[in-house]
Amino acid sequence: MPAPLTAPLSTYRSAVIPEWVDYNGHLRDAYYLLLFSLATDALLDQLGLDEAGRAATGHSLYTLECHLNFVQEVKLGQQVEVRTQILGHDQKRLHLHHSLHLSGEAPMLAASEQMLLNVSTAAARAAPFAEPVQRRVEALARAHQELPAPRFAGRAISLARS
Amino acid sequence: MPAPLTAPLSTYRSAVIPEWVDYNGHLRDAYYLLLFSLATDALLDQLGLDEAGRAATGHSLYTLECHLNFVQEVKLGQQVEVRTQILGHDQKRLHLHHSLHLSGEAPMLAASEQMLLNVSTAAARAAPFAEPVQRRVEALARAHQELPAPRFAGRAISLARS
Repeated sequence: MPAPLTAPLSTYRSAVIPEWVDYNGHLRDAYYLLLFSLATDALLDQLGLDEAGRAATGHSLYTLECHLNFVQEVKLGQQVEVRTQILGHDQKRLHLHHSLHLSGEAPMLAASEQMLLNVSTAAARAAPFAEPVQRRVEALARAHQELPAPRFAGRAISLARS
Repeated sequence: MPAPLTAPLSTYRSAVIPEWVDYNGHLRDAYYLLLFSLATDALLDQLGLDEAGRAATGHSLYTLECHLNFVQEVKLGQQVEVRTQILGHDQKRLHLHHSLHLSGEAPMLAASEQMLLNVSTAAARAAPFAEPVQRRVEALARAHQELPAPRFAGRAISLARS
């Protein structure tokens, strides 16, 4: 069993490209989610659900629900990095948290909490994780179990809080 | 004062283009948000924060927080429509809800609840809405006040609920 990690996984790095910014040269909200979505793809590769794994299992993970918090503007050309933490799982769902940073730096620019569902693509319905995927999910969840809860996790949107 | 509306505003229509779909031909999660983001832009135009309005007021609306629920797959080439409902506001925040549909059809394909903040761009800090914008926000909020609460509004992500 791997030792608990002291930091989330670094799952994706990219420069902010012109297609992703608005009239002000700032990263548009949807492209924060694209960065997190590409980080989810990279995580799924690590869990054995890359193209070969999807073909072998007939499974794929779908995003059910996603929450985003935007903390700081990100500008054209900046080098950014997504870090990923497993918050929990059951037999067919994976609850995770991504944070966006300038590459190698501590301050969080944005956060996304997500719930993913394992789906049998032929049957088009939810299915338990294939056994090798379940083992990897459990190992990663164990490795992340002592990480602190992220600042925005579990949040609902309301005018009553700022 | 306008009469209360019986339906949310239709704010954005588009076909699903090849750049937005994954290896399966399904709309990728980030591009649902792009559709909602473009619908927010269209709403802001109606509230007087189009390019001329931003220049006149020195204000712009920033997304603070966003929640997305994915209900049904959307495929390459489908014609979709975003409908928008104001859930609430204060002097500098706008709380809204977008839903995604096949154009002209009732079933909801996805939903997004959002909190936007009015910002003085020169000062880079929150500011009360300019008076003409505030009046339009209030009129639209009144028009929407009798619409039913959307299915997913106010939700937090948790493994304890499905």
